[in-house]
Amino acid sequence: MRSLEKAITERGLVLSEGVLKVDTFLNHQIDPALMSEIGKEFAARFRRELITKVVTIESSGIAPALMTASELGVELIFARKKKSITMTDDVYTADVYSFTKQETNTITISKSLLTSTDRVLLIDDFLANGQAALGLASVIKQSGASIAGFGIVIEKSFQPGRQKLVDAGYRVESLARIETLSHSEVEFVKNEMASQSL
Amino acid sequence: MRSLEKAITERGLVLSEGVLKVDTFLNHQIDPALMSEIGKEFAARFRRELITKVVTIESSGIAPALMTASELGVELIFARKKKSITMTDDVYTADVYSFTKQETNTITISKSLLTSTDRVLLIDDFLANGQAALGLASVIKQSGASIAGFGIVIEKSFQPGRQKLVDAGYRVESLARIETLSHSEVEFVKNEMASQSL
Repeated sequence: MRSLEKAITERGLVLSEGVLKVDTFLNHQIDPALMSEIGKEFAARFRRELITKVVTIESSGIAPALMTASELGVELIFARKKKSITMTDDVYTADVYSFTKQETNTITISKSLLTSTDRVLLIDDFLANGQAALGLASVIKQSGASIAGFGIVIEKSFQPGRQKLVDAGYRVESLARIETLSHSEVEFVKNEMASQSL
Repeated sequence: MRSLEKAITERGLVLSEGVLKVDTFLNHQIDPALMSEIGKEFAARFRRELITKVVTIESSGIAPALMTASELGVELIFARKKKSITMTDDVYTADVYSFTKQETNTITISKSLLTSTDRVLLIDDFLANGQAALGLASVIKQSGASIAGFGIVIEKSFQPGRQKLVDAGYRVESLARIETLSHSEVEFVKNEMASQSL
């Protein structure tokens, strides 16, 4: 998605060969117009899947997931990383290690929110090692719901996340695919999706 | 706001005299259509303030804040409760105690995102004791930005948060104001805002 790649190039900051900072438009400050475009793009790519629920993990996934859910006309669930005292129901859980936060979180979704007839689209802001994505998929599978695929805003294609998801049989749609972050510059994967779309 | 009060009455669950569970449409599962209405309502109430930034705290504030920011055509900042490794900038911080999570978080906003010329609208999902709201206000004031007021989705009017904010000189616009949660029922404050609006 061109406008996203433009935002990454112009407003992102490469902190190291592995770390891209996009705090100015995606995961600390959020650009609503760009999120709206992102939501429309995910909705277009998955519209034929008859999605019934969009699911993400707090916090940075919420904005793109909300815009996608809004566009698809379905509700959004965000998995919590910590139980609140209002979560009294039985819950589905999975342990997820975050490399950026260097901690393990138990992600949680109330059982009452998903049924085996749901068709779920999973959205997240980043795909790197695939830990969060696989944890989220595990939580969904516990409910018996089916997974239409993953919508990823920014994929670090030099890390193994995409391959792990593809190997597990999932469709992965990433709006920006980063080939490398070497020499303090972002280089995008040159291929179909990245160059064809908006 | 009628549609919000209807959602609270029909889809909310009173867990105790102090705790209302709205996990089905606000802070675990999210109803995008309702969030869009909420965003339009906050935007309408604060449009004359020439807001330049909408600010909230992760995670449950993000959805209503995003829809408000989208409607006002400005960017949204969500304060983080924990520093990520990509937060390398100088930051503004404040300590906030959460009664629902029974823990103290240091909320954080990168200094680079706010300037003294910003006019800020603060959005949150709940107002109860006012701890989060006052912490957020403290963070904004450190930047020199001015605060137009607070947009609150659900105010527990039987708790002291609103009074604390009003005493501190802030305008508070709450879309649903709850008088009591006694007898496992939600009773709304009967007054101007709650009964006049949508």
